Amino acid sequence: MTDVAQLEKLAKLIRYYILTSTTEAGSGHPTSSLSGTDLMTALLFGGTFRFDLEMPGHPNNDRLIFSKGHASPLFYSVWAAAGKVSEKELMGMRKFGSRLEGHPTLAFPYTEAATGSLGQGLSIGLGMALNGKYIDRLPYRTYVLLGDSEMSEGSQWEAMEIAAYYKLDNLVGILDVNRLGQRGETMYGHDLSVYDRRISAFGWKTIIIDGHSLPEILSACNQAIEVKDRPVMIIAKTIKGKGVSFIEDKNGWHGKTLKKEELSRALEELGTVDRSARGTTAIPENLKPVAGQAQKAPGLSYILNAPAATRHAYGTALVRLAPQFPQMVVLDAEVSNSTYAEIFKEKYPDRFFEMYIAEQNMVGVALGLARRGKIPFVSTFAAFLTRAFDQIRMSQYSEANIKFCGSHAGVSIGEDGSSQMGLEDIAMFRTLLDSVVLYPSDAVSTERLVEVAAQHNGIVYIRTTRMETPVIYDNSEEFPIGGSKVLRKSSHDLVTIVAAGITLREALAAYDELKKEGIAVRVIDLYSIKPVDAVTLAAAAAQTRAVITVEDHFAEGGIGEAVKSALALQPVPVHSLAVRRMPHSGKPAELLDYEEISAKAIIRKTKEIL
Amino acid sequence: MTDVAQLEKLAKLIRYYILTSTTEAGSGHPTSSLSGTDLMTALLFGGTFRFDLEMPGHPNNDRLIFSKGHASPLFYSVWAAAGKVSEKELMGMRKFGSRLEGHPTLAFPYTEAATGSLGQGLSIGLGMALNGKYIDRLPYRTYVLLGDSEMSEGSQWEAMEIAAYYKLDNLVGILDVNRLGQRGETMYGHDLSVYDRRISAFGWKTIIIDGHSLPEILSACNQAIEVKDRPVMIIAKTIKGKGVSFIEDKNGWHGKTLKKEELSRALEELGTVDRSARGTTAIPENLKPVAGQAQKAPGLSYILNAPAATRHAYGTALVRLAPQFPQMVVLDAEVSNSTYAEIFKEKYPDRFFEMYIAEQNMVGVALGLARRGKIPFVSTFAAFLTRAFDQIRMSQYSEANIKFCGSHAGVSIGEDGSSQMGLEDIAMFRTLLDSVVLYPSDAVSTERLVEVAAQHNGIVYIRTTRMETPVIYDNSEEFPIGGSKVLRKSSHDLVTIVAAGITLREALAAYDELKKEGIAVRVIDLYSIKPVDAVTLAAAAAQTRAVITVEDHFAEGGIGEAVKSALALQPVPVHSLAVRRMPHSGKPAELLDYEEISAKAIIRKTKEIL
Repeated sequence: MTDVAQLEKLAKLIRYYILTSTTEAGSGHPTSSLSGTDLMTALLFGGTFRFDLEMPGHPNNDRLIFSKGHASPLFYSVWAAAGKVSEKELMGMRKFGSRLEGHPTLAFPYTEAATGSLGQGLSIGLGMALNGKYIDRLPYRTYVLLGDSEMSEGSQWEAMEIAAYYKLDNLVGILDVNRLGQRGETMYGHDLSVYDRRISAFGWKTIIIDGHSLPEILSACNQAIEVKDRPVMIIAKTIKGKGVSFIEDKNGWHGKTLKKEELSRALEELGTVDRSARGTTAIPENLKPVAGQAQKAPGLSYILNAPAATRHAYGTALVRLAPQFPQMVVLDAEVSNSTYAEIFKEKYPDRFFEMYIAEQNMVGVALGLARRGKIPFVSTFAAFLTRAFDQIRMSQYSEANIKFCGSHAGVSIGEDGSSQMGLEDIAMFRTLLDSVVLYPSDAVSTERLVEVAAQHNGIVYIRTTRMETPVIYDNSEEFPIGGSKVLRKSSHDLVTIVAAGITLREALAAYDELKKEGIAVRVIDLYSIKPVDAVTLAAAAAQTRAVITVEDHFAEGGIGEAVKSALALQPVPVHSLAVRRMPHSGKPAELLDYEEISAKAIIRKTKEIL
Repeated sequence: MTDVAQLEKLAKLIRYYILTSTTEAGSGHPTSSLSGTDLMTALLFGGTFRFDLEMPGHPNNDRLIFSKGHASPLFYSVWAAAGKVSEKELMGMRKFGSRLEGHPTLAFPYTEAATGSLGQGLSIGLGMALNGKYIDRLPYRTYVLLGDSEMSEGSQWEAMEIAAYYKLDNLVGILDVNRLGQRGETMYGHDLSVYDRRISAFGWKTIIIDGHSLPEILSACNQAIEVKDRPVMIIAKTIKGKGVSFIEDKNGWHGKTLKKEELSRALEELGTVDRSARGTTAIPENLKPVAGQAQKAPGLSYILNAPAATRHAYGTALVRLAPQFPQMVVLDAEVSNSTYAEIFKEKYPDRFFEMYIAEQNMVGVALGLARRGKIPFVSTFAAFLTRAFDQIRMSQYSEANIKFCGSHAGVSIGEDGSSQMGLEDIAMFRTLLDSVVLYPSDAVSTERLVEVAAQHNGIVYIRTTRMETPVIYDNSEEFPIGGSKVLRKSSHDLVTIVAAGITLREALAAYDELKKEGIAVRVIDLYSIKPVDAVTLAAAAAQTRAVITVEDHFAEGGIGEAVKSALALQPVPVHSLAVRRMPHSGKPAELLDYEEISAKAIIRKTKEIL
């Protein structure tokens, strides 16, 4: 039997799986799966794809990402044809408790990263390819199955330009041009030349094929692995619903499954299926990734009261901690001289990757790196992390171990004005399941929080401040996740002031002023906004008449509401000072006053309450 | 005097303004301004740009958007050279209270839209061009000044593809390729051919010029307005810092101003400046926009208890309200058959624009439309609106009148799984200043809330549900913004249950069950999550022992925290039921149970409290 005949048999089996499992589920995307069936069959079982089926995490495995995650029936069926999913399990697809969810998730061990929000898989693949070529130095290749509809997402072109820039010849995209999107034809239909021109212009090698010709696919796969110094896109003309005449190339069949009687007709058309056929993948190499030895990081030597910007301490912390975390990789979106990631870049140029002004791709790349065992630290202005909220949101479903740092938080950045002010970043990161949100107020706490972030497995957000603030903590102070610091306390405190970052300075100034007037207040540094130190807050709430939160962030979803949630079952009144007026340009102090989050405002509010 | 000589004189004046005003401010971006000075001088004062200086809002004015908003010193200086900003005002740039903020904002009347987050101006311009060509049918043109660094943003390529798709020959981009980004060289430096190839491949006419040759710029501007059926990009090779020898083309001068002594040297180089020189713009036409007559919308005729999906009611509401709001325009990101915006599209194809899967550009386009007086309704899955958070965030600084609709909210979508579930959308929209967040629970409230959204001037978010829910309101019921509905109430209520959308159904079911057991609870439909009905909540809190919030959304920033904020000064305990476990595929009812936001969970929590 020729290879092609065996592949034909497997493709038929996979089509059988797609059709039967989606009809059984009663929902899903059979037609988008059928268009890519021949592509995936030939890729996985045609000899180029190297994968240890018993060890999906093998560091030398080629990686496969379904950017068009809605083709999950194809994804699961391919692994079924490889013998790793039983027919019984396939028939439970999309049911509660199944590993085979509506779109691929990590519940299924062959999923490299959760997909389903379109236009993200290429960036994730890019991260894995970057890891293979420049960090682990392993010969694995990364394949990404793309839909034509999703090529309209800008994030694709971010990935295109960066992959070409880094000459990632270990990255292969497979573009399944089936002409039809969810609600009708794409912008270009079956005009493959548009994709060819654009993708070529972005510096990729393109290979145009008939996506249902197994010999053409095999040839393209073989050609792709010979290309040097640039990524490859196999652009395949396909038919949505291919293999079932009455749904082929028809609009109105996206996300629609066959009824029982339609399935019977379809299976009749398909003909005899060899349900015992199984595909085999090539055997991967067994090389070890290049990896450094962990060494203990040195201690700190900040001088109390000396001014230092927390954003600067972020950069110095990365350098200090680099020996302790050899898996650390730093990415920045063309503002490393502002976030101070450049301090790391200068010391460890091999572990720093410039991501240019393309935040969405940067986060996807970070996810790809994290899935390959790295600890990516990702920085830009806090405001601009909003650009990648969808990628950040999706990364939580891939159990991402990513550290985000947003600099230039709040109105305290001053003259640059509202567009550059991160005022919704805490709310954004708090929404994520099990996320950690940290907000240091001085250089020492920044260093320590970067350290605990690196140690913690999961998504951590670190918020830094543009301006300098005095060092208030001793070099030996520790800052566990979920903790807080009670900085001012007496037995007769009337009010508790909860602050973090830049507003902590204001709270301490308010304390001094109020003390002169004989008003004792407690001051808490809520450096860990999520998880929040509910115990300390509860004690303070019980011991004082009221709580005042003060934050350089919009009123919703930030520190105020985190504290209200922590104290929701206690009767203490919680007053929240936050950014509530349209922010403008001006001096930091003017803006803190204008927004009523300055020491003056804290004093006023305290007196108003008492 | 030749035109070019006059333009040279104006360019010199503008450079003088840029240098003196930024040194005075002590911050800002003079070098990025100097690279674009000749381009803007020749465009505005060279004869092609039609603008009534006394009436910046004139509907026939050509529009000018600085996508590279950090070149604001150039922007303000150009208008100063047009006589609309005094030298005194220029010298107050970036100071608190000045109209001339760090990046352009609407405080300055010549700003079309606030910019400063890169890669957004082209989409906004696209919206304005779309309006000119297809809606207002006015001959104005839209010009967008772009930086080369920001071309790495994917949103640019979304705008590129959509502008070409809609054949917007009234849109002209001017790409200021000054080679240097914030922290170093861009990916392509001065290789203009890269931009040329890519932009051409995206369907635009390109014109390559020396961006400091006034004759070349004039010629390009004249050529640009003759192009038919496609947008034009003038790609200009420029020098960052042009005109001041010691900062020209030098790295390390981004966002840096000249010191006093450096300024003296620079001005000496500049030579004699005619501070009385003033540029003139061409006179715009005086045509009236095409506009329909407003007619009263018909009433509703839903049948009580009949099932209907709120997402479907969104579509029917758009059609019903279209006659009443002739300025309504509907955009959707290739999912109109799921959001049901397609109902509008079928009835009013001329006022519907398919935006394909490119959410960032869609929001930018909406802002452009809103700035030209339209009322854009923008829809996609709630989850995918996160893709455009940066654009949404920026739109608040342009006082945007945009209505967002996010469908498929929450785990109740079922089998499609986590990637498709909007679980952070309420938190995202709540952060925006003065935003309105609405969450209807049945078809009648959806219709009414779409209506109040259209009437309200500002950003409104409407959250809809995938599955059908019974009609619970009478057709004549009204739903003012900031209101709520107390649906179940007695004099002996023990607990208040606050719900909205899909969880309202669960709360009502819990009420029935608890009633059977003799436990009276109050049920509030919190359809307006922001602003929230603090009065009704306060009364319920005072009259019952505890409040339980229940929402199909993550725990942070949603309904629970909105209610906690409203009740922060009251001693009532607030318990919050929300999505707190990793969501999966499954049947809606299974998932509501799993996440403990179902009737069962409400009953359990109620009993636990009592």
